[in-house]
Amino acid sequence: MQPYELTLAEAADAIRTRHLSPVELTESVLERIAQKEPHLRAYVTVAADRARSAARDAARDIAAGHHRGPLHGIPVGLKDLIDVAGSATTASSLVRADHRARTDSTVAARLAQAGAVLLGKTHTHEFAYGLTTPQTHNAWDTDRVAGGSSGGSAVAVAAGMATFALGTDTGGSIRVPSALNGVVGLKPTYGLLPRTGVTSLSWSLDHVGPITRTAEDAALVLTALAGHDPRDAASLSVPATDYRPRSGTDLAGLRIGVPRTYYFDHVDPETEDAVRRAIEQLHDLGARLVEVEIPMTRYIQATQWALMVPEATAYHENTLRTVPDLYQADVRVLLEAGELMTAGDYLRAQRSRTLMRREWARILKEVDLVAAPTVPTTAVRAGQETVTWADGTVETVSDAYVRLSSPANITGAPSLSLPVGHDSAGLPIGMQLLGRPLEESVLLRAGHAYEQTRPASGLAPAA
Amino acid sequence: MQPYELTLAEAADAIRTRHLSPVELTESVLERIAQKEPHLRAYVTVAADRARSAARDAARDIAAGHHRGPLHGIPVGLKDLIDVAGSATTASSLVRADHRARTDSTVAARLAQAGAVLLGKTHTHEFAYGLTTPQTHNAWDTDRVAGGSSGGSAVAVAAGMATFALGTDTGGSIRVPSALNGVVGLKPTYGLLPRTGVTSLSWSLDHVGPITRTAEDAALVLTALAGHDPRDAASLSVPATDYRPRSGTDLAGLRIGVPRTYYFDHVDPETEDAVRRAIEQLHDLGARLVEVEIPMTRYIQATQWALMVPEATAYHENTLRTVPDLYQADVRVLLEAGELMTAGDYLRAQRSRTLMRREWARILKEVDLVAAPTVPTTAVRAGQETVTWADGTVETVSDAYVRLSSPANITGAPSLSLPVGHDSAGLPIGMQLLGRPLEESVLLRAGHAYEQTRPASGLAPAA
Repeated sequence: MQPYELTLAEAADAIRTRHLSPVELTESVLERIAQKEPHLRAYVTVAADRARSAARDAARDIAAGHHRGPLHGIPVGLKDLIDVAGSATTASSLVRADHRARTDSTVAARLAQAGAVLLGKTHTHEFAYGLTTPQTHNAWDTDRVAGGSSGGSAVAVAAGMATFALGTDTGGSIRVPSALNGVVGLKPTYGLLPRTGVTSLSWSLDHVGPITRTAEDAALVLTALAGHDPRDAASLSVPATDYRPRSGTDLAGLRIGVPRTYYFDHVDPETEDAVRRAIEQLHDLGARLVEVEIPMTRYIQATQWALMVPEATAYHENTLRTVPDLYQADVRVLLEAGELMTAGDYLRAQRSRTLMRREWARILKEVDLVAAPTVPTTAVRAGQETVTWADGTVETVSDAYVRLSSPANITGAPSLSLPVGHDSAGLPIGMQLLGRPLEESVLLRAGHAYEQTRPASGLAPAA
Repeated sequence: MQPYELTLAEAADAIRTRHLSPVELTESVLERIAQKEPHLRAYVTVAADRARSAARDAARDIAAGHHRGPLHGIPVGLKDLIDVAGSATTASSLVRADHRARTDSTVAARLAQAGAVLLGKTHTHEFAYGLTTPQTHNAWDTDRVAGGSSGGSAVAVAAGMATFALGTDTGGSIRVPSALNGVVGLKPTYGLLPRTGVTSLSWSLDHVGPITRTAEDAALVLTALAGHDPRDAASLSVPATDYRPRSGTDLAGLRIGVPRTYYFDHVDPETEDAVRRAIEQLHDLGARLVEVEIPMTRYIQATQWALMVPEATAYHENTLRTVPDLYQADVRVLLEAGELMTAGDYLRAQRSRTLMRREWARILKEVDLVAAPTVPTTAVRAGQETVTWADGTVETVSDAYVRLSSPANITGAPSLSLPVGHDSAGLPIGMQLLGRPLEESVLLRAGHAYEQTRPASGLAPAA
């Protein structure tokens, strides 16, 4: 096994016990990038020299006995919405061609503090406003979409081009590409990870979170990055928490909600089968399954859009007037549509969100988490614009990919996406676990137990 | 002196010491209502029998040694936006002709718990959406406006038709009529008094608060009504506080901000003189005066309107479609205008509010409170639509009355309006004290000290 293939936890253990040096690990990952990046295009920029220098610093510190914790010396990719002092934050957009960040975002500063080795900035669907990331190719099949908007981060982790990465999630943008590339994505509770220095898509729905190879890895990143930041008005004050799941796979006492409605409607049969098998596996580990009715499903799409579209437009107000031609056509249309939305539409969505939060809180008193598909189908071919369901219904790819993930953005509750198998084309399938606000530990424990007992697939990213 | 003339504190002391019975007090106030109401029209409904019965209950309880506190046996009027179980909440509107409240609003329940005697429901500008309350006449001159929207409550307290009253304040609706009728009005910190069961005008700007004869009286009401209510999403959790100001009039150490900008622009000279004299009196009591620059003044009006108009329209969405003709013309126009506002306008106002809060917080580090006129002019004649300033500028009466009070609604900070004299027509002038969130005690202490040392005017409501 090559160092680039290690999980974060494995690499961290090897570094801590001096079986692996940050320099070896970083070189292995950089070599993998050199090999894979031309085919996958996950990165906007790779700062190889800077990474090598950081890896040497980490190696020296650790050799001198100053091991800072599990992220020390670990190579990470950052979605290119996240400011790093002295670098451009391009948001994968021509609008940001002349950008240069003056200071680190809070998450970048905390990664640096933890000793992580920054590899570079990964591609996003332009300004995070889309579900495919067209610049980037799926790690399992280059003819397929990466998913978005954190497509570069998910592909980098899936292809061994980063040990972990950060993404952002406004309607599913961490979880969708994680599911489509067979990696783990965590959208934490709204406000748990600070967004200072992270380009906003829609401030009331935006989240930052980890993309990793395992639930345990996600827990390590979350532990390092959580904590109040007064500069993000939504940032929560939560006591420092160790999210690392305890060992053992006994889920006795855990009540898992299985949706009777919504989450299995218009879902590809292979996706449904894989998710239901994974739920059965959680049951075999001791969890009790409880059927739940998903609330207010008719309002989910309208609420997500009526919150996101005007907030996004407000953020781009000036550049939309001065440099409209620098936006990609798909994003510009959405931003311009935002100018036509009424305040009434926005306020109705705010009120709908309040009711939806209340209803979800009620369900999450009856169960400890809800298990469901992350996305209704695996990665579609690049350029494919619609999905046609068995009953003849046609849905745009964007609507399909955002449909099952957006409820957690509207409510702000945490959602963890895990790989749970492959379809007959060999493409990865994702299951999400949705939990109570600030109960990431419950999701991570269930995810970790699942991963420990998951049958090996024998498959690996082919791209 | 008749019982109806007593302040709340005086009446409460007389009741506690058995020098006055709740029955005598209530009869005195009801008699005053019988005399004055035909000329002033402060009340939508007076429930005399119910009040007499409540007064007898209070008298019996107190005689039996169960004195509940300073509100026990005190007659109160409620603005007719505030639900009382079994009564209509008409909002002074034909739209509510068939209304009947099933349960008490939280403030009505807390008043009942404190033993207050409900006299009836007072007039509001229809649905609180205006600054004049056209049904009601000013207590000092029946040809003049009462001010609004809590016009009935302010006139009732000014004319001896209630010992105290409750109003609501979205842009100044407690403080404006209090200033125009020579009584005290307190708009507390946003979220301090729960709004459950109170008809909303604009939920992000709405406040409930007391209208009384003195600052001390306002403190007694605030003490009885404050406290968390989980059914109002904005309700704050604040420890129980006794707001009653301590005796003594020494204001040494208090820093009072005197606005260099905004609050004395386009202000009637007699109003300015009276307010500046009152500020000098606070200085004579030991306070230090500090000139302050009011922030973001260009944005105040636009921010207030862009928050209020769409929120009000959202509340009336259904009835505006089904029974538009039941609204008064002035209110219907405003509600219909709200349908045209864009989400962008609303979001810009939200962002402007965030910045304004930050700037005001900065000023309120340098001073403990800001003193300013409540309204730029005294009560105008009924039917008068505009005010013309010395420089020829013409302003609508509504714009003029809301201009100086709305900043405290936008920021959510507390504001206390006090009578500080009369113009040459004998009409009352109001000064407001604006303070830090949750520092009502500072305002009440300064207001109380001012009242203790205020020269007697010899004037009384003539109407």
